[in-house]
Amino acid sequence: MSDQSFDPDVRRVAHLMADAARTAILPYFRSMSLGADNKLDSGFDPVTEADRAAERAMRDILARERPDDGILGEEFGTKEGTSGLTWVLDPIDGTRGFISGTPTWGVLIALSDERGPFYGIIDQPYIGERFEGAPDGAILQGPHAQSTLATLAPRDLAEAIAFTTFPEVGDAAEQEGFHAVASQARLTRYGMDCYAYAMLAAGQIDLVIEAGLAAYDIQAPIAVVQAAGGIVTDWQGGPAHLGGRAIAAANVEIHAQALAILKNY
Amino acid sequence: MSDQSFDPDVRRVAHLMADAARTAILPYFRSMSLGADNKLDSGFDPVTEADRAAERAMRDILARERPDDGILGEEFGTKEGTSGLTWVLDPIDGTRGFISGTPTWGVLIALSDERGPFYGIIDQPYIGERFEGAPDGAILQGPHAQSTLATLAPRDLAEAIAFTTFPEVGDAAEQEGFHAVASQARLTRYGMDCYAYAMLAAGQIDLVIEAGLAAYDIQAPIAVVQAAGGIVTDWQGGPAHLGGRAIAAANVEIHAQALAILKNY
Repeated sequence: MSDQSFDPDVRRVAHLMADAARTAILPYFRSMSLGADNKLDSGFDPVTEADRAAERAMRDILARERPDDGILGEEFGTKEGTSGLTWVLDPIDGTRGFISGTPTWGVLIALSDERGPFYGIIDQPYIGERFEGAPDGAILQGPHAQSTLATLAPRDLAEAIAFTTFPEVGDAAEQEGFHAVASQARLTRYGMDCYAYAMLAAGQIDLVIEAGLAAYDIQAPIAVVQAAGGIVTDWQGGPAHLGGRAIAAANVEIHAQALAILKNY
Repeated sequence: MSDQSFDPDVRRVAHLMADAARTAILPYFRSMSLGADNKLDSGFDPVTEADRAAERAMRDILARERPDDGILGEEFGTKEGTSGLTWVLDPIDGTRGFISGTPTWGVLIALSDERGPFYGIIDQPYIGERFEGAPDGAILQGPHAQSTLATLAPRDLAEAIAFTTFPEVGDAAEQEGFHAVASQARLTRYGMDCYAYAMLAAGQIDLVIEAGLAAYDIQAPIAVVQAAGGIVTDWQGGPAHLGGRAIAAANVEIHAQALAILKNY
């Protein structure tokens, strides 16, 4: 999909969905601090409730505004469409961060065609930050200002900042692969889920390396990172949008440097 | 220091300082995304600049408003006072988070007497969150609302959420000690610096365990966590406000359970 053919209705509906997800989720965030034990005893699980409420709200908008598009959602599965386009939704990416109260989880919304995602939003409702990647560019609407997103210029792996969500990464080989790259980087950080991809798009870090992903975990990050000038592939350099292992890089140079290591795992 | 003797001027000046630190730091946060290479080449280091500008701003306020108090600051060292009170300042706790763009660093402000800190602020300027602990209670002023801070009620270590900043923690024995506790917890998370103590005070998590701390890293967290109902000690159960190893716990029960393990390291 080229710039010329990008339909502004996609943006309109995606923002409606992100707004609805914010409204659905925020009442649940940090709600466990109020009488956590009683809620646990009664089977109340705020992250599951919030997850479902947000996906339901987003699906309602799609049913009304874009009934011909397909949907792949974390909570309520697949709905076939007729338009050739599929919305890929993860209402709360980073549920472990969510239940810990840290504002580093996000709402993920992507729109894909047969080649993969070409539009995406990573939204952080508590902070009020929305990272958007589209064929016509990538922007951040944040609590202080709106700004263009652009990934970092090339620098050597020895100068780079690398993120993954868990030190364990995936299986034993994947853990080894990640640490083979990270051990050569200047700084390794953990615990950010989708927020790490947002920081990559924002020109703050160089690499995000993960494994064991679902399609709905990675499609919005792919769209945002690519629109900001970055590159996302699997660990062999192929497409990453179906999930599994992913490496997101600020530029082709650092991507090549990390991939040369990851390819062996 | 009892509730009765808490001087409201402490709160007034502390908030002035936290406001000044926000103003000083925010222009530097994420500033590396704009022409990072040129800035690095010219020796410009935004986190160092921001650190110094914020501590300078806070010291200026103390010189004007409370000239008799002592100061212990990360950047500009010790100033002796005559009041018996010392302000303990870390203008940016979590510099590695700061340079990665994640909003999980904080401005730390504590006020101590000879027994340790009795007032503290953990401020997150980008989100606009201020966690305050005082002899008359603990509150959060956040982007959405103001709320009382209260730590979690007791639950077993097997149900608990434990944080530390780096998987490496401190030295080899300290790493082993942390993981001996964390391996029994429900969930372990990394990468939050002072924000983890804020989440403990906010009733989101059960334990923060760290090592290799400076006094200015831990004094504000101690004041905030204790005012919210938690407990902070070293790994032997003694005072933690001089730095080194610290365990911050939501309640005495989970503190005892974790300490029984940590004591062996």
